[in-house]
Amino acid sequence: MKTIQKWKTLKTDVALDNKWYTVHKETVELPSGKVIDDYFVGIRPDVVLVFPVTADGKVIMVRQYKHGAKEILLEFPGGVVDEKEDSVQTAAMRELREETGYTTADIKQIGVVYDNPTKDTNKIFFFLARDVEKLHDTEFDETEDIETVEVSPYDIPQLIKAGEIKVSGSIAIYYMALADLSKLSSVIR
Amino acid sequence: MKTIQKWKTLKTDVALDNKWYTVHKETVELPSGKVIDDYFVGIRPDVVLVFPVTADGKVIMVRQYKHGAKEILLEFPGGVVDEKEDSVQTAAMRELREETGYTTADIKQIGVVYDNPTKDTNKIFFFLARDVEKLHDTEFDETEDIETVEVSPYDIPQLIKAGEIKVSGSIAIYYMALADLSKLSSVIR
Repeated sequence: MKTIQKWKTLKTDVALDNKWYTVHKETVELPSGKVIDDYFVGIRPDVVLVFPVTADGKVIMVRQYKHGAKEILLEFPGGVVDEKEDSVQTAAMRELREETGYTTADIKQIGVVYDNPTKDTNKIFFFLARDVEKLHDTEFDETEDIETVEVSPYDIPQLIKAGEIKVSGSIAIYYMALADLSKLSSVIR
Repeated sequence: MKTIQKWKTLKTDVALDNKWYTVHKETVELPSGKVIDDYFVGIRPDVVLVFPVTADGKVIMVRQYKHGAKEILLEFPGGVVDEKEDSVQTAAMRELREETGYTTADIKQIGVVYDNPTKDTNKIFFFLARDVEKLHDTEFDETEDIETVEVSPYDIPQLIKAGEIKVSGSIAIYYMALADLSKLSSVIR
């Protein structure tokens, strides 16, 4: 079994400096000793994603336009952690409330993943929110226009297979949430 | 039920132009009529990810250092589609062979997802490769140093839960591949 080693960062330059999109150009030294002077890394804020389930077992999803993909996509609610927030759980509660109007006191972190560890720095924090209730109005950012969609968890595997749910984080959080709920064997068919 | 609409792109400027990292600054018009003149989008090549299974049911994974996350991560083999390649399946076969030395004639696409549809243009094409055999030597790019790891599919849910597998695409492809193999109920526990 071989030993994989980390790279050393020798120098960091800012290649693109914007509130929403920062890119660093790094000079890195590989374990072989080779130096590469143009390794680009996207410096991105961490993200939260929430799997919300109502008391009667419905799952709350959101449909919205995403301008990277240029498609209207069905996903779980979530968004970027605000740097002023005291915890990722606070961000998860806020995004759930703003995007769907639903809230709950029963929320817990069930995983931390990367979307693109080759190119981007950010993590995604997965939360499971149980007994969610619609107690608020939605509050969208100016770039957001969101439809709330109530889905049966039994239908999600088919929505994934049909390509109706096609964002890797939303697929991953579904299976991780169900594993946590210990309902996998009865829900997946 | 509300109707979600796409945005219009009014103007595209190149904010960062590099072989490995291109960013566009777009002027977009939202459905509300509001115009935003600085929406940044990462223009990224499409990616392939392969779930390789041997004839005796072992799954082939790869462990390597990823400089965005600055961590050594366990994932499925994959990589960027070369613009000269005639199909994404050709890219999947090549990445499997180069990163692990394994190959097969039994490969098929089982899904297409986005990692970050808000910020990035690229898709990830998921492939299921069955009856893979180690018939070649590995061939790494100069930035690659990869350990091949043989895993039992029965251990993967625990590896995900423990955070040993923590890239959203690798979690999603596992469950989609198992759904395709019609072995979900017996494999997940």
